[in-house]
Amino acid sequence: MEITLEIAELTVAAAKNSALEIGIPMNIAVVDYGANLLLFCRMDKAWLGSMDIAIKKAKTARFFNIETGDIGKLSQPGSPLYQVEISNGGLISFPGGIPLKNNEGEVIGAIGVSGGSIRDDYKVAAAGADAFKKINNITKENSV
Amino acid sequence: MEITLEIAELTVAAAKNSALEIGIPMNIAVVDYGANLLLFCRMDKAWLGSMDIAIKKAKTARFFNIETGDIGKLSQPGSPLYQVEISNGGLISFPGGIPLKNNEGEVIGAIGVSGGSIRDDYKVAAAGADAFKKINNITKENSV
Amino acid sequence: MEITLEIAELTVAAAKNSALEIGIPMNIAVVDYGANLLLFCRMDKAWLGSMDIAIKKAKTARFFNIETGDIGKLSQPGSPLYQVEISNGGLISFPGGIPLKNNEGEVIGAIGVSGGSIRDDYKVAAAGADAFKKINNITKENSV
Amino acid sequence: MEITLEIAELTVAAAKNSALEIGIPMNIAVVDYGANLLLFCRMDKAWLGSMDIAIKKAKTARFFNIETGDIGKLSQPGSPLYQVEISNGGLISFPGGIPLKNNEGEVIGAIGVSGGSIRDDYKVAAAGADAFKKINNITKENSV
Repeated sequence: MEITLEIAELTVAAAKNSALEIGIPMNIAVVDYGANLLLFCRMDKAWLGSMDIAIKKAKTARFFNIETGDIGKLSQPGSPLYQVEISNGGLISFPGGIPLKNNEGEVIGAIGVSGGSIRDDYKVAAAGADAFKKINNITKENSV
Repeated sequence: MEITLEIAELTVAAAKNSALEIGIPMNIAVVDYGANLLLFCRMDKAWLGSMDIAIKKAKTARFFNIETGDIGKLSQPGSPLYQVEISNGGLISFPGGIPLKNNEGEVIGAIGVSGGSIRDDYKVAAAGADAFKKINNITKENSV
Repeated sequence: MEITLEIAELTVAAAKNSALEIGIPMNIAVVDYGANLLLFCRMDKAWLGSMDIAIKKAKTARFFNIETGDIGKLSQPGSPLYQVEISNGGLISFPGGIPLKNNEGEVIGAIGVSGGSIRDDYKVAAAGADAFKKINNITKENSV
Repeated sequence: MEITLEIAELTVAAAKNSALEIGIPMNIAVVDYGANLLLFCRMDKAWLGSMDIAIKKAKTARFFNIETGDIGKLSQPGSPLYQVEISNGGLISFPGGIPLKNNEGEVIGAIGVSGGSIRDDYKVAAAGADAFKKINNITKENSV
């Protein structure tokens, strides 16, 4: 159930590589099962205002075991979760936060990325989440 | 005027039973006459992000003696209470918070539920509020 | 690693019984492995100001895997952790918060109690922690 | 004036190595010239409550360009900076935060470490600060 720092580092490294490919410096955060911060980094020249957003995206994704963008669809004016962002000391409900799952499909953490367009943020977060999945599978095979 | 812990526990138990029937783990909170927290529980596997929402729903319902969903109708863009959610350290204005009334119809507390769709949240909160009403009536009959 | 709500309820029930024996109404909180609130109750006539203290005691005990009173010994003027209470949104460093451990001795949560003298708070928290330990042992035996 | 993420990573790696040598899992943070978070990591099994303290130590050291422990000497009851910890959303005034200087001796950031005794915290932070100095010197030589 616990994400080791080593696995979090590999996850963030994959996200960073994706950001370098895109050419947009990002803020990247990983939270654990308890939604507590495990790892954070801000790439050179990344927006200062995106630190808090990256961390809040990761927390939001773990808080509800859902991609942050899916909350945004429900929190628009007139929608079921209007203004939910005010809760939990501030949620972020646009794309860039993705749950991290173990091999049994259980959410055990989340990654949050902020620094560019929501399309780029999502792409970078997804690169991290994909790497996380592969690392867990390798770890699983090795331990068999 | 005061809700005893015992009655709050029976109220939450009824809400929990409703949540178990629906099959959605919930966060459930009861606040008292002063809108102060009396009882809170998080069911196994319930969303971490719903703790704060459940408590804020209960507080919101008591703050204005109204079901939380009714505030949401007034807080939309262009509506009279636009952005009221920013007040009081954060309100929740979608369904799941219901005032608790004594036999004279006076609001003496509230229940707040969060963990599923707003329909499920409301259903579970209503189960708690209904139980609260029945318990008060029984108590009244016994005391006659 | 997870404390079920059922076990948290038994833990709080034991603490409540201890409070009733002493005759002091208490606020009692249990947090989980991630230091997130699991269960909270305020007994009839317990101090309003002790809600936050009970929750902060539980969080503090889990934050550092230590009894809260032990932090207070280190946070006095001139001592190594002077003013540590300002961190983490507010710590409580006097007695009444006790870590909850699994059968392997790993801290997996904490209980926090506030409502009387620190001696009474500690006694009630310890009653909860003792019950938690016994429940885990029984669960272990049954599962063998 | 800017600390690159790469140099921050080398700095934190040195601190982590020191923590591994000591055998105490630490929370480690680096802030930049603007006292904004650049890099943070929590080692496996490090205290949850030390995340905030590590970040606050780094910020405090940069806020005043001073080792955090030196502030603690001035913030005791009756001393010139009594209660300064209440400012800036919370300062930490015991050892474990150290300014990071460039080759001209100008403070351009800080490192903060929390997870053990203040002696261990300081040792690990100093290992990070020493590595930072050496890296800057090498970079300087290379650029000549």
